[in-house]
Amino acid sequence: MSFLKKQNKINELLRGTRIPEHPMFRPEFPPQEAEPRVLVMEEENIPTERVESALRCLPFYDPSSHLSGSSSPFLYWKIRDFAYAYRSGLVTPLMVAEHVILGVEEFNNKNPSMPWLVSFSAEEVRKQAAASTKRFEEGNPLSILDGVFVAIKDDIDCHPYPTKGGSKWFHEVRQCKGDSVSVSRLRRCGVIFIGKANMHEFGLGVTGNNPNYGTTRNPHALERYTGGSSSGPAALVAAGLCSAALGTDGGGSVRIPSSLCGVVGLKTTYGRTDIRGALCDGGTVEIIGPITATVEDAMLVYAAVSGSTPSDRFILKPSPPCLPILSSDDSSDVLRTLRLGKYTEWFDDVFSTDISDKCNDALNMLSKAHGCETVEITIPELLHMRTAHVVSIGSESFCSLNQFFLEGRRAQCTFDTRTNLTLFETFSASDYVAAQRMRRRMMNYHMEIFKKVDVIVTPTTGMTAPIIPSSALKYGETNLQVSGYLMQFIVAGNLLGLPAISVPVGHDKQGLPIGIQLIGRPWGEATILRLAAAIEELCAESRKRPATFYDILKVK
Amino acid sequence: MSFLKKQNKINELLRGTRIPEHPMFRPEFPPQEAEPRVLVMEEENIPTERVESALRCLPFYDPSSHLSGSSSPFLYWKIRDFAYAYRSGLVTPLMVAEHVILGVEEFNNKNPSMPWLVSFSAEEVRKQAAASTKRFEEGNPLSILDGVFVAIKDDIDCHPYPTKGGSKWFHEVRQCKGDSVSVSRLRRCGVIFIGKANMHEFGLGVTGNNPNYGTTRNPHALERYTGGSSSGPAALVAAGLCSAALGTDGGGSVRIPSSLCGVVGLKTTYGRTDIRGALCDGGTVEIIGPITATVEDAMLVYAAVSGSTPSDRFILKPSPPCLPILSSDDSSDVLRTLRLGKYTEWFDDVFSTDISDKCNDALNMLSKAHGCETVEITIPELLHMRTAHVVSIGSESFCSLNQFFLEGRRAQCTFDTRTNLTLFETFSASDYVAAQRMRRRMMNYHMEIFKKVDVIVTPTTGMTAPIIPSSALKYGETNLQVSGYLMQFIVAGNLLGLPAISVPVGHDKQGLPIGIQLIGRPWGEATILRLAAAIEELCAESRKRPATFYDILKVK
Repeated sequence: MSFLKKQNKINELLRGTRIPEHPMFRPEFPPQEAEPRVLVMEEENIPTERVESALRCLPFYDPSSHLSGSSSPFLYWKIRDFAYAYRSGLVTPLMVAEHVILGVEEFNNKNPSMPWLVSFSAEEVRKQAAASTKRFEEGNPLSILDGVFVAIKDDIDCHPYPTKGGSKWFHEVRQCKGDSVSVSRLRRCGVIFIGKANMHEFGLGVTGNNPNYGTTRNPHALERYTGGSSSGPAALVAAGLCSAALGTDGGGSVRIPSSLCGVVGLKTTYGRTDIRGALCDGGTVEIIGPITATVEDAMLVYAAVSGSTPSDRFILKPSPPCLPILSSDDSSDVLRTLRLGKYTEWFDDVFSTDISDKCNDALNMLSKAHGCETVEITIPELLHMRTAHVVSIGSESFCSLNQFFLEGRRAQCTFDTRTNLTLFETFSASDYVAAQRMRRRMMNYHMEIFKKVDVIVTPTTGMTAPIIPSSALKYGETNLQVSGYLMQFIVAGNLLGLPAISVPVGHDKQGLPIGIQLIGRPWGEATILRLAAAIEELCAESRKRPATFYDILKVK
Repeated sequence: MSFLKKQNKINELLRGTRIPEHPMFRPEFPPQEAEPRVLVMEEENIPTERVESALRCLPFYDPSSHLSGSSSPFLYWKIRDFAYAYRSGLVTPLMVAEHVILGVEEFNNKNPSMPWLVSFSAEEVRKQAAASTKRFEEGNPLSILDGVFVAIKDDIDCHPYPTKGGSKWFHEVRQCKGDSVSVSRLRRCGVIFIGKANMHEFGLGVTGNNPNYGTTRNPHALERYTGGSSSGPAALVAAGLCSAALGTDGGGSVRIPSSLCGVVGLKTTYGRTDIRGALCDGGTVEIIGPITATVEDAMLVYAAVSGSTPSDRFILKPSPPCLPILSSDDSSDVLRTLRLGKYTEWFDDVFSTDISDKCNDALNMLSKAHGCETVEITIPELLHMRTAHVVSIGSESFCSLNQFFLEGRRAQCTFDTRTNLTLFETFSASDYVAAQRMRRRMMNYHMEIFKKVDVIVTPTTGMTAPIIPSSALKYGETNLQVSGYLMQFIVAGNLLGLPAISVPVGHDKQGLPIGIQLIGRPWGEATILRLAAAIEELCAESRKRPATFYDILKVK
C-alpha cells in the first residue's frame, strides 16, 4: 500500500500541497444563468406530467422509420416505438415480456454464468406486464413510459427485490423496504421493471467484474468487459433487452459502461435526481442517472426521474430541471452559439489514438454542420483532482461498509473490494479534509473555464472495452492501469458534481465502441443533451449495433 | 495514543456504532419560527445602523447609577457609560487610552510575564484614541461604540498587528493583509483596538496556557487559569481593562474563559458572524463571538459584528439576526412562556456541587421571578457527540497546520499542541465521515428536544478555574481530566452550531466565578440574550468584582 500510494503521489499531493481554499464538502455552485431555448420542468409536477412535457421537446415521430428493418421483434426499439406499437395494438407488454424473460433466463443458465441481472423474477415481470397490458386495453396508459421495460442497478431499491449492491451479503444487513424515489417515479409512469442489474461489487470498481454472480459480458465482444460499475444496466440496453436502465455514478459508473457498450449514459448534476433509496445515498459524489440506447430516451427517463434530493439533506439551490427543445426550428441557432472547451494534451492522453481520433471527428462534424467553435482550454492540477476524488469516494464508502465489518463481513467481500478497502483505510482524516479543500480549488478552476466555454469535451474513457482475463472470472481482478484509463476523464463530474453525458461516436479498429463525453455547467443538463442529440445524429452512420441477445444466444 | 484512544473509546464509538444517518459536514438547520418580541436587524444595514437600532432594545439608561461608586476611573464602565461620559465631556478617549496602556505595559513587564496581549503598540492605541477624541470634539462620533476599547483574540486579523494564533511562527507563513470582516465592522463604529489578545496556541486547548508568550492569569485568582482558548480576551474584560473583546469558539473557547473569569460570552450560531479573516475560517465548528462584562454590551457588540458568512462559502439559510426588545414592558411576558430544558444527570456531573447548586439557584430564581418552567429532558449519546466533535475540530485543525509541517514548523509548536496533533493524526478519513454522520444524528436529537423546550440549560463548565502548575508555565500542560471538565457542556454549540451564552451566576466556596450556559435554537440568539439579561439581573447581588488591574498591579 505504501508503494502504491507513493507511486500515485497520494500523500505528496494531499500533504505536501498548500491549499488555502476552504473545504467544500459537497458540490456547491454559484447561481447559474438560464439555458436558452429549453423547457423548464417544474419539480412539483408529478412524473407523468414531466414526461408528457418532455415529449413536446422531441422531434417529429415517424413510426415507419423505426419499427421496420429490425430482424428481431422489439430489438432496439426506442421508447416512442414501444409507445406507438402498444397504442396501435401491434404488440402488448405481455408479448414483449416473454422475450425479455427468455433472454434473461438463457444468460443466467450459461456456464460460466454471465448474468445481466442478479435478482429477477419472471412472475413479477409477467405481473407488471399484465397490469400494463390491461391499462392499454382499457385505453388508460399512465404515460409514454407505460409498458417500457427498464432495468435497475442492484444498488438502487426496487421492490420486491433485495438490494445487494452486487455483493453476497449486503441485503442481510440492510433490508429493502420499498422503492427508491427514482424507481417510484418510474413506476408511476407505468414502467415495467425487469429486475436488479449486475454491477461491480459496491460500485468500487469500473470494469464490471463480479465473481459473486458472474461477470457481465460486453454485447459487442463477449470476451470483454462492459465497464462498470453499472455493468448490467449498460449491457442490457446495448443488447436491446430493455430500452432504459437506471445506474449510479460516483466515479464514472454510468458513463464508463455506456461508453464501452456503445450506448448513452447521463450523469446528472449532483443532487438533481433524488438519491434516497440508493446505497450510496449519503455520498458527496454519487448520483442516479439513466442509461439508454438513444439521447431521446435519456431525455424521457431523465424527465421522469428528475426532481432534486430534498434540501433538508443536501443544502443546494438547484435551477429547475430543463430539457432542450429539439422540436423547435431554432435549435440549431442555439447549437451555433455553443463554445466547446478542449484541453488537447489531456484529450489525447489515451491508450489508443483511435479514441481521440473518433472524438475529434465528432468535433469536426459539429463544427461543419452547426458551427460549434472548439476553444483550447487548460485545466490545472488534474492529478490533484483525481486524488481528491479517490480519497472522497473511498473514505465515504469505507465508512458506510465499516459499520458492518466488526461482524466479520469484510471477509465476505471480493478480493478486489478488499484491496480497495485496504487502500481507503490508510487515508487520514486530514487527507479527507485536504481533499475537500482541493474540491473547492478545482471548482474555482472549472467555474473560470465555464466563463469561456459552454461545455468541456473529452473522450469518455481513455480505453475501449478491456479483455477479461480468465482468472478474473473466479477471483476478480485489480488492475490499476486499466482503472486509470477508464477513469481518465470522469472525475470532474463526480468531485465537482457537474452534469456529463457519454454518447457513442464510432468504433475503434477492433470494432469496440468509443464514446465522447460532454461536461456541462452546474444544472446544465439541457445543453449537453442538445449537443449529444446533434452528435448522435451526425455519427448515426458509423454506429454499429452489437450482437443482439438473439445472436449471443446462438453463439454460446 | 492507542491507550488514550481506547480509554476514551474513540475507535469503539466511531467504528463500532451503526450510524445510518448521512453525513452532515456543517451544521444544517431546518427553518425556524420567528422569536417573539425581537428587533430584526437587516443584514444589509451598515454596522452603525445596526448598533443604533440595538440601542433601542436596551432598558432606560441612568448615568448616575453607573458612573459613581467605582473607586478607580473607567473600571467596569459599560459601553453606554463610556458613550455618556464622552458625550458629556467628562473624559476623552485619549484620557482612557493612557490608563489602558499603563495596565497592558505593566503586565507585560512582569516576571514571569503574564501578558494579556501578545501584540500591542501604545502608539497605535494613542493614534486611534486621538482620532476618536477628535470626532467627539467635532460632535461627530460614529456610533455608540465610538471610543470604546476592544481587544481582539490573536487568531482574528486586526490591522496593523500580525496574526499569530498564539504561536511563535504562524505569522511567518500567513500574512495578515488587513482587518477581518468582524474587526472592520467594529472599526466602522469607531472602536479603539488595544491589540491582539493572548490565547491557547492555535486554540487547541481550553486552559489558556501559553508558554510562548506567558500564561494569562485569572483576575479572580492570579495563581489560576483563565480558561481558554480566548484567555486574553476574557481576562482583559474581567479585569476591567476594556469593555469588550472578540473571541473565537470552536470548542468552548469563548464560553469557557468567560465562565471562569466571571464575564459574559456569546457563542453565535454557526455562520451568523462573518468568519473571514480568522485563522479557523475554514472550519465546521468555529464562530466569532463577543466577550463582555454585561449582557447589554454583548448585545451592542453582537449587533455590530452580526452579518452572516457569505453563502458562496457556507450554504446556509440564516434567519436575520435579532435582538430581544428589553426596553419593552412585555419582555417579562415573553420570559414567562420560555421552557428551559434540563438534563439533570448531566447537569449534576460536575467537579464540585457548588457549580450545579449555583446554577440551580439561578433556575429557581427565574422560576420565581418570571415563571420560567424547567422541563426534564434527556440527550442520548453525549459521549458520541463529544467524540464526533474532537474528530471534526482535530482533523480540520491538523489539515490547516499540516501544510506547513513539511517545512519543519511542527517542532516550533508547544508540547501541548504537538500532543494534540499526535492524537489528531491518528484519526482516519472514515472516522471523520462517521463523525459527520453522528453530527446529523445529534442534530436530529436536538431538534426533537427543541420541540419541547426553548432553551437547554447547563453549567457552562464542569469545573471552576484550575490552578496553574508551576511547571506548566514553561513547558505547558496537557491535562485531559481538566479539559474534560471544562468542555463537559460545550459541544452542542460547536458540533451542531447552536447559539449559546455563558452568564455569571455567582461563585464557588473559593470565590471563583461560576457561569450558567443557555443553549438556544438555531439562529435563536435573541431568546438566550433575553434570558441571560434576566439571569444577570437576578444574580447581580451575588456577583463579585475580581481584583482590578490596579489591585493586581499593587499585589505583584
